[in-house]
Amino acid sequence: MAKRVTGPEIEKLIQLLAKVPGLGPRSARRAALHLVKKKDQLLGPLAAAMGDAYAKVRICSCCGNVDTSDPCSVCTDDRRDNSVIIVVEDVSDLWALERASAMNTAYHVLGGTLSPLDGVGPDDLNIKGLIERVSKGGVRELIIAVNATVEGQTTAHYITDQLDGLDVKITRLAHGVPVGGELDYLDEGTLTAALRARTVI
Amino acid sequence: MAKRVTGPEIEKLIQLLAKVPGLGPRSARRAALHLVKKKDQLLGPLAAAMGDAYAKVRICSCCGNVDTSDPCSVCTDDRRDNSVIIVVEDVSDLWALERASAMNTAYHVLGGTLSPLDGVGPDDLNIKGLIERVSKGGVRELIIAVNATVEGQTTAHYITDQLDGLDVKITRLAHGVPVGGELDYLDEGTLTAALRARTVI
Repeated sequence: MAKRVTGPEIEKLIQLLAKVPGLGPRSARRAALHLVKKKDQLLGPLAAAMGDAYAKVRICSCCGNVDTSDPCSVCTDDRRDNSVIIVVEDVSDLWALERASAMNTAYHVLGGTLSPLDGVGPDDLNIKGLIERVSKGGVRELIIAVNATVEGQTTAHYITDQLDGLDVKITRLAHGVPVGGELDYLDEGTLTAALRARTVI
Repeated sequence: MAKRVTGPEIEKLIQLLAKVPGLGPRSARRAALHLVKKKDQLLGPLAAAMGDAYAKVRICSCCGNVDTSDPCSVCTDDRRDNSVIIVVEDVSDLWALERASAMNTAYHVLGGTLSPLDGVGPDDLNIKGLIERVSKGGVRELIIAVNATVEGQTTAHYITDQLDGLDVKITRLAHGVPVGGELDYLDEGTLTAALRARTVI
């Protein structure tokens, strides 16, 4: 803005909100104005929640999940089957799989995928921690749930190689037609995989 | 989420972020994770900026703008022509007009429009304050820049009636084709207005 129409504190708030994913410069202004109007219902509580999260957030030293305790809520949940570990790229994948509520297992967050072009090698990911967890024993299955991208598959192969010789079953997610998906819109690779893995009705 | 996958502080942050306009439950989760990952670059500064804005935000007692000082940056700006007041519905309209930088005037925020169906009468809007500002003298033009809706136009007429007898010129924004707009997509009302208000090239 050419001329000052509001205080520097509000300008600063708009600038920072614009960096939040999902908000741009325009929607950040709208959001800031809404927050300021709902000062007591929203701005105050949100400021407090952010301060609280800032003070308490931890990365779980066991699985890599984001939580306010270390070890995290997932690792300390004794109703889970800790002999099965689902290996994911990112914390958001862990949360997504938990929303599906299909399994009740432990997790391991790699923090990315191997990508030599971007300079991401095995030491940049939490692979050493995974090998340590499996080496300690008590793990019977490792479900590698990385994205179905080239980098994801490379990472899956690397992990499988590293765990060679250890007594653990390594599985990966099934490929196929997404539930609710239309065949017409799917790529050849997915259709081929779905045909090959067909099941008896 | 059925089972706890993260701390209550982060859950709370997600819940509150979902109430920010532009973010929904899904994008709030993504935003919270991004904030937590960029703890020192984004979460901390944003928490501080929100706390700061919460403590300092004021509604300008003169024009109704949102600022951290009262009177606000616009009202105290002595490079502005205070004999012209642009009357707007909302603070966001004030900011939008300021971004256009077309005029260098004072403003007056009504805080809404007359809407009998929603129970919004003249006393719920900042109309009394406007009449007081004009009655004090020194105002030669009032530009009524309310939205081109039925409620907006009703409000404009009401204000014009109330100011009857006071020595002030009252104008409204021109109707016409938006700059960059295509005729094909415009409604009949806009096209009629644009034809009637045609200008010599």
